[in-house]
Parts: sequence; structure tokens; C-alpha cells
Amino acid sequence: MSLEKTLSQIRELDREAMAKNQARLDILTKPPGSLGVLEEISLKLAGITGNPMPTIGDKAVVVMAGDHGIVQEGVAAFPQEVTPQMVLNFLAGGAAINVLSRHVGARVVCVDIGVISTVSHPGLIVKKVKTGTNNMAKGPAMSREEAVKALEVGIDIATEQVRNGCTLLATGDMGIGNTTPSTAILAALTGLPVGNIVGRGTGVDDHRLALKIKAIERALEVNQPNPKDGLDILAKVGGLEIGGLAGVILGAAATRTPVVIDGFISTAAALIAATVEPRAKDYMIASHVSEEPGHKHMLDYLQLPPMLHMKMRLGEGTGAVLAFNLVEAATKILHEMATFADAGISGAL
Amino acid sequence: MSLEKTLSQIRELDREAMAKNQARLDILTKPPGSLGVLEEISLKLAGITGNPMPTIGDKAVVVMAGDHGIVQEGVAAFPQEVTPQMVLNFLAGGAAINVLSRHVGARVVCVDIGVISTVSHPGLIVKKVKTGTNNMAKGPAMSREEAVKALEVGIDIATEQVRNGCTLLATGDMGIGNTTPSTAILAALTGLPVGNIVGRGTGVDDHRLALKIKAIERALEVNQPNPKDGLDILAKVGGLEIGGLAGVILGAAATRTPVVIDGFISTAAALIAATVEPRAKDYMIASHVSEEPGHKHMLDYLQLPPMLHMKMRLGEGTGAVLAFNLVEAATKILHEMATFADAGISGAL
Repeated sequence: MSLEKTLSQIRELDREAMAKNQARLDILTKPPGSLGVLEEISLKLAGITGNPMPTIGDKAVVVMAGDHGIVQEGVAAFPQEVTPQMVLNFLAGGAAINVLSRHVGARVVCVDIGVISTVSHPGLIVKKVKTGTNNMAKGPAMSREEAVKALEVGIDIATEQVRNGCTLLATGDMGIGNTTPSTAILAALTGLPVGNIVGRGTGVDDHRLALKIKAIERALEVNQPNPKDGLDILAKVGGLEIGGLAGVILGAAATRTPVVIDGFISTAAALIAATVEPRAKDYMIASHVSEEPGHKHMLDYLQLPPMLHMKMRLGEGTGAVLAFNLVEAATKILHEMATFADAGISGAL
Repeated sequence: MSLEKTLSQIRELDREAMAKNQARLDILTKPPGSLGVLEEISLKLAGITGNPMPTIGDKAVVVMAGDHGIVQEGVAAFPQEVTPQMVLNFLAGGAAINVLSRHVGARVVCVDIGVISTVSHPGLIVKKVKTGTNNMAKGPAMSREEAVKALEVGIDIATEQVRNGCTLLATGDMGIGNTTPSTAILAALTGLPVGNIVGRGTGVDDHRLALKIKAIERALEVNQPNPKDGLDILAKVGGLEIGGLAGVILGAAATRTPVVIDGFISTAAALIAATVEPRAKDYMIASHVSEEPGHKHMLDYLQLPPMLHMKMRLGEGTGAVLAFNLVEAATKILHEMATFADAGISGAL
């Protein structure tokens, strides 16, 4: 589906379904509001789906993989060949995201949206917009047209997942070097100084950290992204998998499907999606806050408090699928708890 | 088992099993340490069980119910009859703890350790130490002998669970008024001013909150609990279910079984257990931080950072069983992830 048509389909939450959901929550055998975020999720799911009594069925994490020209500046701890190697690991079922997805009963949907090398595997969805981004320290990471195409790849994946019955989506990423564009997106959007929000990604040393800060500062100076224009930020200092994941979020919102946001890279995608269409924020559920120092700033900016504090910094969607379990718990509370009347329990004094 | 014998069986963590566990974690396909708390849990489980490759099988939450004489001071939002009503709700499977336990595949073990009224149900374990505590604003909540007995009830329950194959325990509570003794325990142990740590429990208004503060301050003044003596604190300003849960924790530690700590009341029990035997702390896994303001102080005191930030304040073990899923995830990572060598993935630059 085109970006334009998708954006036109993103509506406000269904207030009527939410009111009915709240009324149900309030008669269950617990002090009102005492299940905290589980109740907030229940309410949000009702608003998203339009169903006062939402349920979760099939669920999937979309892992988008892409490469980054900025690694030429020495910003990454691992060599670029790890991107396709990890994609094959996802497809073989041996990565953390596979283990955690199996644990929570979710599928892993793996997409090559911009890996430099050719990865061949029957389970891989190949939708290469470009073989890696350009080095953003020297010019835009991609053209505006390529940025739109990346969003549309994500939109199509999300739409197809929902059409096939998926009820809960999550975002996951793979791309050596991708904390660098994610930090640049946060800086471009908020104006926060790079030195305050940059982190060590998968574990760079002090030397590489200094190179990373310099590369991000140069990318912002060379490209001058417009903070009010999500597509401009994505094209100039973003990444292909970041664009793809922003598309997944917009596609989820257009199809009234909740989408759980993973860590730093996924939340950079969420920033792009929310800048392109602010209403998309209502369809997002934050999962965890990562060790990457900028992540907290992103979540604050989006006003999405994280549920999980796990000191994770792996990406792939690992934090998001852990949160699937909490989202499902919220729906089960709604359906399975006794009411005060059912159980013959006295109310408050 | 006697308290004394139990304490003599609580050993240090198995450092050799932990070293082997760490070696395994370090060859899995992820940057070292990038799974954060999941890796910490894996390591802790190895140390607790002595198995370098721990697994989780059967799991149970022990919900201890008891009443509190201090409700005479008007500290609670709900009438005392709700304690037995909720116990029956647990036994009928309609409470939040039942729903969430089913969700994560755990059993609910329900114990009456001190409910005032008689609750009859074939599923209930009745181990009444006393029919509710005395009003601690006027004297000790219970005798030192009763406090020991409460601990031993918990020890026996935990020991029996482990003997029957349980591999992961959690603590849960029910008892109208029980945030009041829990706050008193925290104040007695740390000397923090009651006004700084008190909260609204299940939702008291300003009037009842003032009564609650006064009641706790009076209980501390009348009883003068010794901050170095966990049994003295429990007897003078504690509760029967709090003692029972402290016993569950000590019993878990003595049988080298991990125990997940729920919210404010369960963590008050953890404070008692850690004061009676500091090594018990190594066997505890924190789950969530509740809305009750004192809970954060308790977790800081125990140096147990919470994984879940859900704004919950229900008790029953609800936060703890949500964390079961995370504990199991940690073991699956260990067993199911590919190594760098298996997957042919390049190491760091």
C-alpha cells in the first residue's frame, strides 16, 4: 500500500470500546487500577482494535536487516559481514530472538531490506531497497524516494501479516552500525547534544566511541535534517531497516493492530513513524528500556514508559517479544478474572 | 523442619557452576553481556542450584493469608471479611493471581496461616498459627514463639514443594491491612521516617492515611523492635502471612531453590528473611516495583533491582508470576542459542 493511503487510514483510538473495557476492569476482584500497566494495556488494546474485550491470537516479530555506509568511519564493534551471518542465524533458529519468540509463541518474520551482500534462504523475505545506505557523514544516507520505499516495504509486510491473522506485531532489527543512525535521528529530532545521548552499541571502546560521536555530528552538519519532517530525517541520517520498521508501525496503525516497540533502533523507527503521523503513537506499546543511554530519551519523547528494565542491548526484537507475554496477560485478566458480584466479595469501606 | 536446622543448611552460591555458566553465556551469538538481566538470572540460577546449565520445570506461587489486629485503627480501605472472601476466590480460580499463574503455567498454593474466620475448602492448606495478629499499636503483633512458628510453616511448605519437584517458587500474600505492618518492618529496619515510606495500599483516602501513619508510629514506639533481630521485628510489628512468606524464602534457600519476590508485603517478608539469615538474599529474584512508595526503598536495601515496572499494587504474587516468564527465558537462552562457532559468525573487531 502507498504511504499516502496508509497515513489516511490511521484513525484515533475507539473511545467507546475503551469506555466499555474500563467498565469491565472496574468490576473485577481487585482494587480499581491496582493492576497498573496491565489495565492500561487492556484499555489501549480496546481502543486500537475497537473490541471492548480484545484477545491476542497469532503474533509475530518483524526483524528488518540492513547495512550502513557509516561503518566506514569506524563506528562499529563488529565487522559488517556479521549482518548477513546473523540473518542466517535468525533463519536457522539459533539467535536470541528465535529462542525468546519460541518461548512466547511468536513467529519471527525476517526481511532483508538492505543488506550489502546477497543472502539466500527460502525463509527470507527479500525486499532490498538498496544495498546498504550511503555514508551519511558525507551526504544523505539515502534519497527521499528510497526512504518512502523503505516505509512502504514495512507497510506491506505489516499489512500482509495482519491479513493472514496476526493480532500482535513487534519490531526487531539487525544491522551492524545501526546505533549510529538511531542516535543521529534522536539528535536531529530533539536537538539533544550527541555527547549526551550516544552509547557504546554492542560494545565499542573509547576510541571508536569518539569516532562515533564525530561521525554523527558530521552527518547532522552535512545533511541538516529538518526536525519537523520524518522522511527527511530518515533519508538523511537514517537506515533502511529503521525505515522498514517505521513502515511496520504505520502499517500496524492503519490496520488497527497493536505493535510492540523493541529497543534503541526500533524506537528510532517509532520516532520516524510518530513524526510522519503523530496518531501512530497510539498504536505503539513500549517494551523495555535498553542500556543505550539515548533510549530513555526516545521513550520520554514518545511518552511511552517501558515495562521491562532488563539492561538489555541486543536488539533483534528481543525485549519486545518478552513484552508479548505481558500484553497477553492483560487480555487474560480481562476475560478470566471473577467480578466482585460473581465471587461475592465486599467492596471498599 | 526447625528454623535452626533450616538456617544451618543455607549455603553460599556455587561459584564453580556460575563460572561454567558464564563461560557458556560468553560463546552464544550476541555481544557479551548484551542480554543483561537475563544473563544475570542465568548465572544466579546456576549458583543457586549448583547446575551450570539450569532448567525450570514445575513452578508454584505460595499465597499466604492472614489477618491483622491493626485494622482496628482504621488503616484499611476494605473490610476484614475480604481476606477469607479472597481466599475462596483464589481457590475458585477467579483472582488475578490465578489468571496470571495459568498464563505462565504455574500452580497456586494457598495457605491460611492466620485468617480470623474459618475458611473451608479442600484445596486450602490450613496452618493457622493464630487467628489474626494482635493490634500492634497496643503491644506486640504476636509472641516470639508464634513468629518462629510462622517461619516454620513457610519452611515446611517450601520444603514440601521442592520435595515434590517444584523448581521455582514465588511469594504471594493476602491480608486486609497488611501494607501497615510491611511499612512498619521497613521503618524498623532502616529507620526511615514513616511519612516518607507510607503509601495508600489498596487505596485509602487522606483520613485513613493519617490514621495509618499514626498507627505505625505508635506501633514502633510501643514495641521498640530491635533492628538487628529479624524475629523481634516480625513478632512486634509484623504479620502472620509475612512470617510465613519469610519462611518460604528461607526454605527455598535451604533447598537451593530460586524464589521470586512479589511486591511490598512479599518484600517485607524478604527483609525479615535477609535479617534472620543474610545469605538468603542470594536465593531471591526481584520481580516488580510496586506503586507503594516504600517498595523501592525495600528493594534498594536488599540490592535487588526489579525487572518489571508495571505500576501494580495488588499483591497476591501477581508481579512475581509475571517474572516467572523472564526467569524461564533466561534458562532457554542458555540451552537453545547457537554459539559463534556453531553459526559461523565473526567475533568483534
